[in-house]
Amino acid sequence: MRPVSLALVHHPVLGRNGEIMTSTVTNIDLHDISRSARTYGCKQVFAVHPVEAQRELVRRICQHWTDGASAQRIPDRKVALEQIEPTATLADAYASLGGRDAIEVWVTSARPEGSIRYADARQRLAEPGKPVVVLFGTSWGLPRDTVVTADLVLEPIVALEDAGYNHLSVRAACAITLDRLLGR
Amino acid sequence: MRPVSLALVHHPVLGRNGEIMTSTVTNIDLHDISRSARTYGCKQVFAVHPVEAQRELVRRICQHWTDGASAQRIPDRKVALEQIEPTATLADAYASLGGRDAIEVWVTSARPEGSIRYADARQRLAEPGKPVVVLFGTSWGLPRDTVVTADLVLEPIVALEDAGYNHLSVRAACAITLDRLLGR
Repeated sequence: MRPVSLALVHHPVLGRNGEIMTSTVTNIDLHDISRSARTYGCKQVFAVHPVEAQRELVRRICQHWTDGASAQRIPDRKVALEQIEPTATLADAYASLGGRDAIEVWVTSARPEGSIRYADARQRLAEPGKPVVVLFGTSWGLPRDTVVTADLVLEPIVALEDAGYNHLSVRAACAITLDRLLGR
Repeated sequence: MRPVSLALVHHPVLGRNGEIMTSTVTNIDLHDISRSARTYGCKQVFAVHPVEAQRELVRRICQHWTDGASAQRIPDRKVALEQIEPTATLADAYASLGGRDAIEVWVTSARPEGSIRYADARQRLAEPGKPVVVLFGTSWGLPRDTVVTADLVLEPIVALEDAGYNHLSVRAACAITLDRLLGR
């Protein structure tokens, strides 16, 4: 199985009206996504934010659970949150994994065109190849400019009886994506 | 497909040391779980809490998104949060669905013994039968007394390469469960 890392992207992401914006760090995203990542054996979770004060916030939240009193109180969180690495840009996250050419970048998309079925993506993970980093956009998701530079676009998450509603939280979407790619 | 409802249980649930306790309402649980429920076509989300002030909090959170200014600002949340119904007990939730004998109660469990595989549970949903309500325990999960009264126990959620860590958030566990039962 190829190693899989995650990147939680706060910039560039889409705003409510389709504009490019920067979202703020959300404490519960760091908890939920690192817990899901740890459950499915992911290697690392990058928290991508261009603002140093926000990256410092990420570090302080993580340290509270990895070194602080809460590390003793709830040790389960320690092994989840210690996977998180704040980076200023996606390029920095890629560099941490050996550079853009050493990895495959996968994204999820709300548009079905050109996307790969989860069963096929799962198969690819089982074959020899580069480490994979899966990007998750906060706010209204990843902009088209990011999606088109990815090596693989995963199909939209849809219910068996499509209820015409596709507004999962990034925490839920990440959990489902990991389960579809790496679940038993 | 049989109708599926969810119940988010705040009492009785397990505490960190295995004691029976009551958890507090978590705003983001209401958002994430109702959004996941709406995506997968669930009929209703019960927020079960014995304390009236906590049920009133649930009502106020929901009204902020169904009738308040935020209903205009982010209409997607309206159709998610309007599915939530606070009840004092699980029995009240069952009564709202026609009574315990009119429904099947399903639970997830961290123990594999006696549990049903997701593929089989999915098959059962496609067959004629009673409406199903799936229980999700907050905090450290549902106590054994609740699990043993269920009609069906779903197998634990495990990764293909078991990383020896099973501490998903209730939000992530709910999303994955719905996708396994009702996802395409």
